[in-house]
Amino acid sequence: MRVQVALAERSYDIEIAAGLLPRTAEFLLQRRHVSHAVVIVDSHIAQSHGTVVRQSLEAAQIRTDWLVVPAGEQSKTISQADELWQQMIAAQADRKSVVVAVGGGVIGDLAGFVAAGFTRGIGFLQIPTTLLAQVDSSVGGKTGVNLPQAKNMVGAFWQPLGVLIDTQTLDTLPEREYRSGLAEVVKYGVILDAAFFAYLEAHVAELNARDPDVLAEIISRSCRLKADVVEQDEREETGLRAVLNYGHTFCHAIEAECGYGQWLHGEAVAIGMTCAADLAQRMGRIGPELLERQTKLLTALGLPVKVPGVSNAPLLARMQSDKKVEHGKLRFVLPSKLGQVELVGDVPAEDVAATLDACR
Amino acid sequence: MRVQVALAERSYDIEIAAGLLPRTAEFLLQRRHVSHAVVIVDSHIAQSHGTVVRQSLEAAQIRTDWLVVPAGEQSKTISQADELWQQMIAAQADRKSVVVAVGGGVIGDLAGFVAAGFTRGIGFLQIPTTLLAQVDSSVGGKTGVNLPQAKNMVGAFWQPLGVLIDTQTLDTLPEREYRSGLAEVVKYGVILDAAFFAYLEAHVAELNARDPDVLAEIISRSCRLKADVVEQDEREETGLRAVLNYGHTFCHAIEAECGYGQWLHGEAVAIGMTCAADLAQRMGRIGPELLERQTKLLTALGLPVKVPGVSNAPLLARMQSDKKVEHGKLRFVLPSKLGQVELVGDVPAEDVAATLDACR
Repeated sequence: MRVQVALAERSYDIEIAAGLLPRTAEFLLQRRHVSHAVVIVDSHIAQSHGTVVRQSLEAAQIRTDWLVVPAGEQSKTISQADELWQQMIAAQADRKSVVVAVGGGVIGDLAGFVAAGFTRGIGFLQIPTTLLAQVDSSVGGKTGVNLPQAKNMVGAFWQPLGVLIDTQTLDTLPEREYRSGLAEVVKYGVILDAAFFAYLEAHVAELNARDPDVLAEIISRSCRLKADVVEQDEREETGLRAVLNYGHTFCHAIEAECGYGQWLHGEAVAIGMTCAADLAQRMGRIGPELLERQTKLLTALGLPVKVPGVSNAPLLARMQSDKKVEHGKLRFVLPSKLGQVELVGDVPAEDVAATLDACR
Repeated sequence: MRVQVALAERSYDIEIAAGLLPRTAEFLLQRRHVSHAVVIVDSHIAQSHGTVVRQSLEAAQIRTDWLVVPAGEQSKTISQADELWQQMIAAQADRKSVVVAVGGGVIGDLAGFVAAGFTRGIGFLQIPTTLLAQVDSSVGGKTGVNLPQAKNMVGAFWQPLGVLIDTQTLDTLPEREYRSGLAEVVKYGVILDAAFFAYLEAHVAELNARDPDVLAEIISRSCRLKADVVEQDEREETGLRAVLNYGHTFCHAIEAECGYGQWLHGEAVAIGMTCAADLAQRMGRIGPELLERQTKLLTALGLPVKVPGVSNAPLLARMQSDKKVEHGKLRFVLPSKLGQVELVGDVPAEDVAATLDACR
């Protein structure tokens, strides 16, 4: 399957199929003349998926350097980016070199930021190997790293040359990581597409069994839904793109307060979506059905829906430093019905606190 | 005087006049609703020009934070940018905050990079206070920092909201810094405008006396010439913008090899232009007149034209790591006549070495 992302800055496509990794060089060379590639790869999958990518590039006579980054959110830092830039200089990378990112969202965000900054921007091929990265960071061009105080605080919008999704990489994905990706898939249904949400409800068994046909369907549909939003708001300027942040204000606060890496991103998204739906209901914006159906589906997919044991005050303080805060006002993306959300300003802090209490 | 820079990404204008600093807030508010400004200022002029800017912003009820950066090229690093990002978080900066850069090229490049990266890009007002920054970094949107191995290796294209040039800031500019700026002015004549070169030759006395009318004239003409180039090649993709790098391959190697800060950038540009003209003559591309006139003008303006006492081998090695090198081939911007240059590939290393010997 193929999803086309049409942007003013750069249009590219996402190729989705089983067994694509050995065809990396072919996919890349169709898009750009390349004689030097820098593969930035997650340490956990360097020997497996990384090696397949590397062999494909080397077989096509592309000079290939190989930079392995420790797995996990703690690698998404300025100092890790700095180290990669220095390694690229040592490898004699130049403006025509291409970065190939192989791994999950951390690697995609980090390697994309490194590509965006190196000589003010070089080409970048994304090969996401987790479900979360496939349905989330494949579309949108958001790259970046964390600061100690806040997630994704430094970065760039930088569109890839293309995205290659090999669904076979999901066969070996650890259980928690797989389920974490499903949380973002559920999110697309809630915010944009009630029919897709119903499709997910009807295919819980296949989703839990990682049925390959259902996987290809949900990945391409998720990418298409996200592309529809991003195409209308490339740089998150009109507010439209903000709908994608459903659940993320709570999510980022939980991730930051519990220490990055304690919760997988999708797990925190599932909790955040639960909080957001509860908050919307508490504010009288929706009836009880949405929260019920969402909680049932998330639970059936093995995802957490309860806020972990940290107190409210530090979570609220974290939300104050979220990028969506403008001059101190708390704003949330909240559902108005299944398949539709709105950006809501001036949310009372008491309601947020009550939601945090209720979702424990 | 006003120079308009019309770009696809963002158009903005450059206001050039005496006594503009106290009108900073007015200039900014004409372009953007702003309630929080982060002034990033060079330590040498924080108390003088910086204070005038700050008072203007505060008088307009704009909440203003104040980040002082040590003067000099050694501040143009990833770690300095990281420190500024963390200070901005501490100051509760958000996506609507605006960075106001007050200082020379180092501050403009660094603060622009910090603005480009913070929450993936916030507004940025440039107030260049050196002649070099006024005629060079005012136009083009190039921001960035150095790596230990190479200058400007990490950065972003990020256009400012506007540029404010108060020619009175040049009254107190140290002699060497002032002359350093004149080197880039001479460069515009050589690469783009023989008539402007002749104007400079005819006004050496006024230039050496910092005549205010002549200053306003050369700044606006330099900005206009650079804007004409940048408008046709925003991201240095077509090769056209490369003409601006006349003298810079030699210049960057000299700066890096002597340690950043040993030579002022414009001084190294003057030496680099001399080398480039010598190389062009050596390769039979021009007769002897251009190098003679250029050397005479640069010398009359008190600029150096001799390569300093470092050996050829490390300089040649530095040039190999220049961004303009593609896959190992040495390329130079060389004059074909006064007012016109070309990007020349495959320059023999022996000719480069002979030029380095000849220019000592």
